[in-house]
Order: sequence, then C-alpha cells, then structure tokens
Amino acid sequence: MSRPIITLTTDFGQADGYAGAMKGIILGICPEAIVVDISHEIRPHAVPQAAYVLSTVTPHFPAGAVHLVVVDPGVGSDRRPIAVRSGRATFVAPDNGVLSLALAVDPPQMAVRLHAVRPISATFHGRDLFAPAAARLACGVDLGELGEPISLAGLVTLPDLSPQRQPDGSWLGHILHVDRFGNLISNIESTGLSSQVAVWVGGQRIAGVIRTYSDVAPEELVAYVGSSGHLEIAVRDGSAAVRLRASVGDAVRVEGLP
Amino acid sequence: MSRPIITLTTDFGQADGYAGAMKGIILGICPEAIVVDISHEIRPHAVPQAAYVLSTVTPHFPAGAVHLVVVDPGVGSDRRPIAVRSGRATFVAPDNGVLSLALAVDPPQMAVRLHAVRPISATFHGRDLFAPAAARLACGVDLGELGEPISLAGLVTLPDLSPQRQPDGSWLGHILHVDRFGNLISNIESTGLSSQVAVWVGGQRIAGVIRTYSDVAPEELVAYVGSSGHLEIAVRDGSAAVRLRASVGDAVRVEGLP
Amino acid sequence: MSRPIITLTTDFGQADGYAGAMKGIILGICPEAIVVDISHEIRPHAVPQAAYVLSTVTPHFPAGAVHLVVVDPGVGSDRRPIAVRSGRATFVAPDNGVLSLALAVDPPQMAVRLHAVRPISATFHGRDLFAPAAARLACGVDLGELGEPISLAGLVTLPDLSPQRQPDGSWLGHILHVDRFGNLISNIESTGLSSQVAVWVGGQRIAGVIRTYSDVAPEELVAYVGSSGHLEIAVRDGSAAVRLRASVGDAVRVEGLP
Repeated sequence: MSRPIITLTTDFGQADGYAGAMKGIILGICPEAIVVDISHEIRPHAVPQAAYVLSTVTPHFPAGAVHLVVVDPGVGSDRRPIAVRSGRATFVAPDNGVLSLALAVDPPQMAVRLHAVRPISATFHGRDLFAPAAARLACGVDLGELGEPISLAGLVTLPDLSPQRQPDGSWLGHILHVDRFGNLISNIESTGLSSQVAVWVGGQRIAGVIRTYSDVAPEELVAYVGSSGHLEIAVRDGSAAVRLRASVGDAVRVEGLP
Repeated sequence: MSRPIITLTTDFGQADGYAGAMKGIILGICPEAIVVDISHEIRPHAVPQAAYVLSTVTPHFPAGAVHLVVVDPGVGSDRRPIAVRSGRATFVAPDNGVLSLALAVDPPQMAVRLHAVRPISATFHGRDLFAPAAARLACGVDLGELGEPISLAGLVTLPDLSPQRQPDGSWLGHILHVDRFGNLISNIESTGLSSQVAVWVGGQRIAGVIRTYSDVAPEELVAYVGSSGHLEIAVRDGSAAVRLRASVGDAVRVEGLP
Repeated sequence: MSRPIITLTTDFGQADGYAGAMKGIILGICPEAIVVDISHEIRPHAVPQAAYVLSTVTPHFPAGAVHLVVVDPGVGSDRRPIAVRSGRATFVAPDNGVLSLALAVDPPQMAVRLHAVRPISATFHGRDLFAPAAARLACGVDLGELGEPISLAGLVTLPDLSPQRQPDGSWLGHILHVDRFGNLISNIESTGLSSQVAVWVGGQRIAGVIRTYSDVAPEELVAYVGSSGHLEIAVRDGSAAVRLRASVGDAVRVEGLP
C-alpha cells in the first residue's frame, strides 16, 4: 500500500519554526506519512490567496491525500476548526473559506468540527489541533472519530466573485492571483475565449486570446488561457503586473464573448 | 521500525545549492532517512535566531530525531564541530552556542568533537563534515565512533540574557524573536503573568496579559503568553514590529509580577 | 533496494502552487519516490543561475538520481523538452542549456526528445510534461520509451565563458554566482592559485589566494578556493557583493598565474 500523503499550505513563512513544529507533530503521530510542502509563503492572513493556490494544486495529488491548510487569522476566536472529506481528498483547516475554491471542484461529502485531543495554545492551532488531526487521518483514523459532524451547507465560503455580465454585453471579472512571474490570473474561465474577443485590463486593450506568450514578440502583452484554466494576462519575458501596475482584485473585462 | 529523521536548520537560503548538496550527501549515506527542512531562512550568521527557532521546534519531534544545524560564521576557524546526544535527540552543529537553548530544556548527556572522515573544504563543513555525521548517526552509528568525547561543561553557550529584577521591582527582559507576522516574542516566561500586570515595550504600556489577540479589537495592541511559553506582544490583524518599530534585543518590562 | 530520488530545481518560487502541483503529479505516478527540493528560488528565467546551482549539487547525490529542472522561458515555443542520461544521473529539462554545466562534468550518454503522454497546457510543461517524465524514469521506465533519441552533439549549451588569457599574461574571468552571503563565485578554477597571485575585482586588488575567510580579520576582503572548486571573493563577516557593488557577470582578473 502507498504511504499516506499530507500536504502543507500555510502563511508561516520559513524563517520561524512554525512549519517545522507541525512537521514534528505529524511524524510523531504518523511516521509513515510523506509530508509535502505546497507553500509556506502565502501572505499573512491572505485566505483568498491560500484558497486559490490550494485549488490549483489539490487536483494533481493522488486520491486520498490529506491537505492541511493553516491560514488562520481567527485563531483563538470561535471560528471552527474543521476536517472535510471530499470525493478525492481530506482537508483539515479553519472554517474561514480557505477550502471553498478547492471544494467547489471536489465537493464535500462529510465534515466535522475537530475536538481538541491535547491541551492547545490560544495562538498555534496548526501545531496543537490541525497537525495532529491531519496525522491521525493520514494514518487511518475515521473522520467521525475526530469531531462532531457538522452541516455541509454551513461551511464558510468566500464571497461569490464570479464574473458578471454587464449591460453592454461584456463580462467583468477581476485578478484572482499574481504569480511570481508577474502573470495576472483572472477569475474568467476559458469557455468562449478566442482570437475574436478583446480583453481590457489596466487601461490596456488586448486584441484576442491566443495560445500562449511564446506566440508573441518579447515585451509584448498577451492574453491566453493559463494552466489553471483561467484567462491570464502576461508580458513575454517580462512582468504584466509591473507593466500594468496591476494587483489582485483589479478589474478584467472581456468584450465579444458569445 | 520507524525511519530515522534528520532535520535541517541553516542560514543558507534556498536560492543557492548549499542545502541541496547536504541533502544529497545525507541520502547517499543514509537512504532511509526522512529529511525535514526546519528553516534555511535564518538570517546569515544569526546564531541566536537559529538557537531560538531550534528550541521551539525540537520538542515537537519524535524522540531519536537527529537535528542538523549549520549556522556557522566560524567555519574554517578553530571552532569545534560537535555532535551532542541529549535525552530526546541528537544534535550536530558547530560549537558556537546555537544548541544552547534547545539543550537548556533537553540537557546533553554526551558530546564529541567530530572527526573528518573525508577531505573537507575550508568553507562548507555543512556538506563535508556535519551532513555526513548526521547521516551516519541517523543510520545507527554510535556517537562515540564519530569523534573524541568532550566535556559537556565546556560546550559554548549563548550569553545568559535572562530577565533581570530591577530596583523598582519590575522585570526587564528583551525581544528574543520577531516572527513573520510581526509578533514580538520576549524572553519572559509565563509564570506569574496575569491580567494584573503591565507590560512596557517601545514606549507603550499594555495593561494586563490576556489570553490571545482574538480577544481584542482589530488593530489593538495586546500581550499574551505565546505558543513557545513566552510573553508575546502583537497587534491584532497587524504587525507589532511595525507599529512599535521594535526589533530583536529591544527592552520589554513587566510591572506587577509577584 | 533504495527508493528512487527526484530532485527539483525551478524558478517557480514558493508562493504559487506550481512546485506543489509537480510534486502531486510525481507522487501519483511514482509513489515511492523521495522528492527533494534543491531550489525553487532561481530568479525567473535565469537559465545560467540554474545551470550553476544544479552543477554544484548533482555531484553530491547518489548515483541514479533523477534531476528535474524547470527554468523554461521558452515554454510553449519549439524549444525541445528533453531527458538525458549521464554516467551518474538522469536529467529532465527544457533543452535551453540549463543542463550544460552539470553535463560538462558528468557527460551525457543518451538523450531523447520527450513525447507528451497526456494533454499539455501551453504554459506549464513542468506539470504536464517534465514531472510525469521524471516520475516514470524514477520508477524504472526506460529512457527510450519516453521519446525519440536525439543527438548528444545537438544539445543546447550555454556560451563558453571560460576565463581568457590576456596579452599581459593575466587571466580574465567573471562572476558566475553571488550567493546569499554576498560571496562572489567566479568561473576561475583552482589550478595554480596560490598566495603568490593577485586578484582584481570591482577595482580592488587582493594579494594572494589563501585558505579561507576565517584566516583574515573581520571586514577584510579575501580570495580563496570555495566549496565548488572555484575562486571566490568574500568579506569576512560581511558581503563582498555589497562592499564591491559586484554582481553576476562582472570581471575577475588574476595576475601571476603560472
């Protein structure tokens, strides 16, 4: 049988010992686990960024993986610590919407509010509550043993920020993520995108969605469908974020969609 | 039997190949080792920071883990390369005090000065000396085979910077660590801290040590006992380091302690 | 038998999910693989930096490791995706010269142009093409099954920037890499370097190549043979890059070499 996989996605950075302490706890409870870092570089408390990154990664892991996510501005408050089983995976996280994009494509089947099984600090549930729960799940403990079942309908979700049809027939979305290369990933999905549409972002008009940036000249601005299936805007061999002074949340408009 | 664990804590960063070379050496000598990154983002040559981070992490690892620490401003000098067995773990590091906080809570039982077992460079003992020693220890070689026993009393320790009682009865400590969130972790331990004391830091007075930041309003300054058992100062949903222009070494004073 | 090793070297950073997605793909195809991060902090599109880092790391890994390198400014163009078997390892990468320094010391024996075995995006061959190939190789698939054999002589190499003998008898090289400590690693190899030569860099003359920086006083500039076997320039307890305002590509000249 394959060894169980636990992935980690946090805003802990890598200069402090927070991620390391979680790994120690996990290996103490489930020594055969393969612990995989997704990211510890989520911006502090950036729940939407974590939700996006997680949703781009989890579909590529083997079925049965446990995904542990600790971006937890509400630690110590009454926000719920949860574990959620979906069709392909199990997620352990605070109930603050950080799972909502991943669960939109891999719907939840059962969720529990985690019990504490040891004394827990008020500020580091990653170490004291979430990591132990993820490790127990990875090593075969049933979800139902970790806490009280809760309603799937009651899970916190991020606000619905789907693109909206405008009176003039265009679609208005926004920038969901800016990656390390300065590529702008929008929340507009690929359906209907073609060389016939026009994309507006940062006051610039881009004529046509094409295959990719290598199809244009260096320094040229280009719109294409990226690896997560969304409309992206890039500058070949450069940064669209710098060129357009664009950041997360900025408007992206598409004209000419059927 | 569980697979042996080797943790890595360095100031090598992750853009160069230094940490990678150590991992290669380890896996060549002890292929069954689980190699766990604690941090490669210790500030260059910051021995006290590494000592602090290590001390917050090692208690959470299973007994028997090997902790390899390479923050080594004295590489190539006559500072000693050492391996130390404590009650719960084995440590491999330069003898520059980087282990002293971890060993304060998990006292050393035996220490050796490492022999070189291959030609070693003058600048990269992490690769040529420490990593091979850690790998051999993880795979079952006795500590005594790696070098000459040395006196436990002679191990280098960081200067004792415990909080000091002041003439007016207050306690004067300092900031030990600033984490990614801008939380200020002091060297003042939790005993006696309560809602009755007052904490002074950066010219600000904080009335009372409470449970955690989620108990105050956003942007509010708060003192509480953090996850490492020390007095911490934070700004809810913000950075105390930015608000107070505070950094490592700055004074923290507590009035009203019994 | 030892578990197969796959190392990762990319310019993806760690805030996005790109490296995580590759790890998920690898573990799905080859669950027993040990996945080792070398670096995800190569500067975006910095093929020469990746080539250098890779060449310092791969010699220290056990024979048989698979080294996956994705620094791929030409993704989506007609640059070739390749896998190369050398005497000690297997490499999977775009054919853009990123392997050329590693292969200079561990010569290639066979190379193939990778076939796509699944639908691939235009922008993320790391996930869709390179990671699956590396995983299949690690789990024992023959190189010849992954693509068409190609000529070893036709592999792209970085421009030959070996040091050149000058009319005055000195040797002129350049800075190949600046590491996290601000040490300047040149492309000049160790042969003939001694206390008799003089090194010029950033308008400064350094008399003699000595053993290492711990042999000089703090803040002093020093030249020595570093851990990769090249001439390095450092400032003890400081940064030579800052002191000399030096960066990659700057000239390094050695006088008095035999």
